[in-house]
Amino acid sequence: MTSVASFFFGLVVALSCLSLQLALASDPGHLQDFCVADATSSGFYILLLNGVACKNPSTVTANDFYFRGLHVAGNTSNAQGSRVTPVFAAQLPGLNTLGISMVRIDYAAGGQNPPHTHPRATEILLVLQGSLEVGFVTSNPNNRHFTKTLYKGDVFVFPSNTIHYQRNTNWKAPAVAIAALSSQNPGATTIANAVFGSQPGISADILAKSFSLDVATVNFMQSKF
Amino acid sequence: MTSVASFFFGLVVALSCLSLQLALASDPGHLQDFCVADATSSGFYILLLNGVACKNPSTVTANDFYFRGLHVAGNTSNAQGSRVTPVFAAQLPGLNTLGISMVRIDYAAGGQNPPHTHPRATEILLVLQGSLEVGFVTSNPNNRHFTKTLYKGDVFVFPSNTIHYQRNTNWKAPAVAIAALSSQNPGATTIANAVFGSQPGISADILAKSFSLDVATVNFMQSKF
Amino acid sequence: MTSVASFFFGLVVALSCLSLQLALASDPGHLQDFCVADATSSGFYILLLNGVACKNPSTVTANDFYFRGLHVAGNTSNAQGSRVTPVFAAQLPGLNTLGISMVRIDYAAGGQNPPHTHPRATEILLVLQGSLEVGFVTSNPNNRHFTKTLYKGDVFVFPSNTIHYQRNTNWKAPAVAIAALSSQNPGATTIANAVFGSQPGISADILAKSFSLDVATVNFMQSKF
Amino acid sequence: MTSVASFFFGLVVALSCLSLQLALASDPGHLQDFCVADATSSGFYILLLNGVACKNPSTVTANDFYFRGLHVAGNTSNAQGSRVTPVFAAQLPGLNTLGISMVRIDYAAGGQNPPHTHPRATEILLVLQGSLEVGFVTSNPNNRHFTKTLYKGDVFVFPSNTIHYQRNTNWKAPAVAIAALSSQNPGATTIANAVFGSQPGISADILAKSFSLDVATVNFMQSKF
Amino acid sequence: MTSVASFFFGLVVALSCLSLQLALASDPGHLQDFCVADATSSGFYILLLNGVACKNPSTVTANDFYFRGLHVAGNTSNAQGSRVTPVFAAQLPGLNTLGISMVRIDYAAGGQNPPHTHPRATEILLVLQGSLEVGFVTSNPNNRHFTKTLYKGDVFVFPSNTIHYQRNTNWKAPAVAIAALSSQNPGATTIANAVFGSQPGISADILAKSFSLDVATVNFMQSKF
Amino acid sequence: MTSVASFFFGLVVALSCLSLQLALASDPGHLQDFCVADATSSGFYILLLNGVACKNPSTVTANDFYFRGLHVAGNTSNAQGSRVTPVFAAQLPGLNTLGISMVRIDYAAGGQNPPHTHPRATEILLVLQGSLEVGFVTSNPNNRHFTKTLYKGDVFVFPSNTIHYQRNTNWKAPAVAIAALSSQNPGATTIANAVFGSQPGISADILAKSFSLDVATVNFMQSKF
Repeated sequence: MTSVASFFFGLVVALSCLSLQLALASDPGHLQDFCVADATSSGFYILLLNGVACKNPSTVTANDFYFRGLHVAGNTSNAQGSRVTPVFAAQLPGLNTLGISMVRIDYAAGGQNPPHTHPRATEILLVLQGSLEVGFVTSNPNNRHFTKTLYKGDVFVFPSNTIHYQRNTNWKAPAVAIAALSSQNPGATTIANAVFGSQPGISADILAKSFSLDVATVNFMQSKF
Repeated sequence: MTSVASFFFGLVVALSCLSLQLALASDPGHLQDFCVADATSSGFYILLLNGVACKNPSTVTANDFYFRGLHVAGNTSNAQGSRVTPVFAAQLPGLNTLGISMVRIDYAAGGQNPPHTHPRATEILLVLQGSLEVGFVTSNPNNRHFTKTLYKGDVFVFPSNTIHYQRNTNWKAPAVAIAALSSQNPGATTIANAVFGSQPGISADILAKSFSLDVATVNFMQSKF
Repeated sequence: MTSVASFFFGLVVALSCLSLQLALASDPGHLQDFCVADATSSGFYILLLNGVACKNPSTVTANDFYFRGLHVAGNTSNAQGSRVTPVFAAQLPGLNTLGISMVRIDYAAGGQNPPHTHPRATEILLVLQGSLEVGFVTSNPNNRHFTKTLYKGDVFVFPSNTIHYQRNTNWKAPAVAIAALSSQNPGATTIANAVFGSQPGISADILAKSFSLDVATVNFMQSKF
Repeated sequence: MTSVASFFFGLVVALSCLSLQLALASDPGHLQDFCVADATSSGFYILLLNGVACKNPSTVTANDFYFRGLHVAGNTSNAQGSRVTPVFAAQLPGLNTLGISMVRIDYAAGGQNPPHTHPRATEILLVLQGSLEVGFVTSNPNNRHFTKTLYKGDVFVFPSNTIHYQRNTNWKAPAVAIAALSSQNPGATTIANAVFGSQPGISADILAKSFSLDVATVNFMQSKF
Repeated sequence: MTSVASFFFGLVVALSCLSLQLALASDPGHLQDFCVADATSSGFYILLLNGVACKNPSTVTANDFYFRGLHVAGNTSNAQGSRVTPVFAAQLPGLNTLGISMVRIDYAAGGQNPPHTHPRATEILLVLQGSLEVGFVTSNPNNRHFTKTLYKGDVFVFPSNTIHYQRNTNWKAPAVAIAALSSQNPGATTIANAVFGSQPGISADILAKSFSLDVATVNFMQSKF
Repeated sequence: MTSVASFFFGLVVALSCLSLQLALASDPGHLQDFCVADATSSGFYILLLNGVACKNPSTVTANDFYFRGLHVAGNTSNAQGSRVTPVFAAQLPGLNTLGISMVRIDYAAGGQNPPHTHPRATEILLVLQGSLEVGFVTSNPNNRHFTKTLYKGDVFVFPSNTIHYQRNTNWKAPAVAIAALSSQNPGATTIANAVFGSQPGISADILAKSFSLDVATVNFMQSKF
């Protein structure tokens, strides 16, 4: 066998490994104390393995369970006036398989975290600073809207898969919240972006009929995302 | 103790029972062969217990595992031009705890099943008649739109919690699909209805900023749902 | 190091990878929107990995969620007079990790789908054409037999792990059913084949005592599978 | 309201409660340290609630976690020559919700525990005395038969939902095994009894075609169970 | 029937209901959008039902998803110099079945949250004020101790079921942390209290041999809890 | 490409594979009949993969489901006077993914299995010989101690995550128990070892305050583990 053949043979092995993505469940009982996400050994694992392969336990250190910086305000200079700073398994590899994560949410004066869902998590939110108008909507047929204005020290729950939002009710000062989510990789689907900003776009006439809009308005909205 | 006192005592017991709603998980391993939903013994169980209490097994018959009528077309005379006929645990009590259900979907000529999510289920759909444009959108940040035109005998999967839709691509003839869902009570959240038709409504300025619309347009949309 | 040594080194790596089989649970909450089975990159993954490794998401297309051909009748020219056409993760890679699948079942005139169990799934069945005698038997000690004759549009549930069967009650015309199962890889154990046709066979005297038969009859039965 | 009316009102409450059967999953994470089956407060709970309601924790004692008598041989004077003595949640109420149980199996000389499945559990078996021929058969399409002769101190595993059996290979002396199962209510389906002894019976011609037998033999077999 | 008889009949019903405790799993997929703990209709449900029965959805309001007061410092005037303020399902009924909860932990100058485990949850902790020495120990055989000093904005994870602790490293100023746990009822077992302060006590000679202490020291320790 | 380059390329592939550790849940529904731990193909899999990769099914034999030797007494010549002989997935590879395991526990005269927890399993114990004082302690706030003296044939349950122990009550003769655990890799945390013998040690002043001891005593205890 030539070294060229050997190279291609090895390449097949390597690519086969690369194409492996493990979809592991986070919530069931564990088989070991922890499974730190193997984020450092090889660049593409972060991308392809979604944080679920584990580091060799003998190389794990306390830093694998540690994240620094949630006291720093996020940059809210954007259209919605809010910023979510995630501490998921991608940022804190020790969270891998443990079914929980945390975020800091900064709201500019009058800023909002627009309607969205977390496909894999319930969210519990604590207001650290300022006041927030929050709400969630239940599924069909009732689509009930539960809403509340929260102040410092208030806690609110957004049940898994419900559409929910928060808005800073103060138009002159920022607000800050800490939230925890019941998955190490909770995901998020911002409704407006997913519906009007998908790649490629959903047919404008489908959206027009769905939202009681004319096609021109839908086209305009799609151009915005 | 008087019979009046006895009545109130009994009432407390009854109301206590009424206020009990059991939230049971459908997917984990079972503890018995089946748990037929107790839909008949008492009217309010259907409402309050969400189909999760079981009938006494000795009274269960084959009819508890049986549903009739999925060959009958649903009435599609509505704004979206589609009708979902569900066979969930509420309709087929033997499905209770078994983690699966079925629906028939009828589409008028040009009708559509507008963008929605199932908070608790993946959907697998089979076209029985006609042709359908279908699609789903992934979560943030990519919001990829996977779309396909389906014909008779084609099967498509809508992964759990993704926003998805179907539309009859034939403007002259109806279409029919059968779909199965991975929960006996999958739920559905129609995006437009939940966002613009919630009760009470979400603040129009929140929606305006979220969807890049002016408040007047949002007010108009909210009046439509 | 020679290229020969390099080859063997690579071979060890390759074989080690080959011997890896991932046993993933399908039902728990997901960590990503989907995990399309990686059936194409390398032939042996289908065989060895049981459809659980994922494709790189950037290479996933709508076709990964699509299966064509369930309108085509299966070939029922066999001893039992029936044919199951599966749409499992092996046939529709997008089903991987999503906990649901579908089959078409064709029944010749008088044909039957003999008693069997699905070790990992409940089945919900819809009659598309013809009529079927169906039934399932509960576990010990009662072994109750729930049976029903189904017609077009009727739906029936076979609870997970119960022994069940269907038979075309029409001796002159075929029947067709669509069924969905609560696993992307539900498995099946046909009772007669597993008991009398295992490889190698179970001792005839064990089966004789179990089934109240003489050993000669058992031997005859074992020769048939 | 009269006391008679009060009685009937209370009766409705009581019967409503009686008709409640809770189907709870045993394997997922618990919400409390234990949930002792409430077997004593009221006779019908054992029957109807399947051992899943809990006693008031303040009345729980060490005896709720205790079972006496597994050193006593079971009576094997029956057709198969074996006896299973169960320690399930029904016998040991503290097992409720904890997902494990134990049995003692006695085998007469030459006795057998005929082919059966446990719909909700894997079994791990330890031979305490004598020797056993054991085996299990995998699902379709291979129906592989894994078999082994076990001696004192040997352990064997029967994977969940596989058809399996044990036989005392010694025709002159009894054998004893202890087995543990991964459910507090594992259930069992003895194949011959469920297929040929169901109530009511499965049509003889269905079984004849399934097992390659003539109808007369099936009728004979059905008369034996 | 007399009203007295009626009373006793009702009493049996009531007590039967009281003795029912439902052990529901929190982590698996839900069957409805939420299941608010029914804490108000009847006092004993909180105690006996462990927060798992649901309120009638039609009576649920936004306040059921809301908790006030986590900005208020807890009283740390106790032997360990720390205070945990819980926001579990008992305090925030909307958390019921949603598998997440939150706590505020206050530490006096030099105070500590002594070694403990959460039998049903992983904990993710954020330092809001001050600095903390934290650590957890893995299971046998290695009993590795992962430890870190945390400052404001630092996040640390304590994997489920590991023994862990926090201590305020500042002997002159208090510290504050917010933690989230992956269960609505995570539970806690403080090691010293459970081992040396159980009711009744574990035999002193067992503890002496376990901890390499003499019996007199164990007796002294047992008198302290 | 040279063979040297080829070697290093292959090495990267190999090391990448080595660093992969799969954290799979054992309890949820399976996707295949079994997944035998791949303990033989490559030495480091045992260490790094924690017994969760599967062998190629075609190479699986009955021996993969078999373990020999549980009739042999373990060596109890140690400080606690007890020995646990495990039959986990590491010892019996066929247990992999099946959620159950077994141990034999030998107790010298007066020996004890000191207080410990199993982070991932409930334990059901059967006394084969002698008598045992056993107990477990519930979580906060009550820390109730349930204790019982067991004799031959007695069975006792230690609920998941509770601190529990056993002691041979006979100071002149050994005792033997068989226990089953609800995980193929249940883990164990011996309290004294984890708290006083961790590597590195927990600060003595933290332990002193936690256990109401002086620092000198803690230092002495830490020197013993």
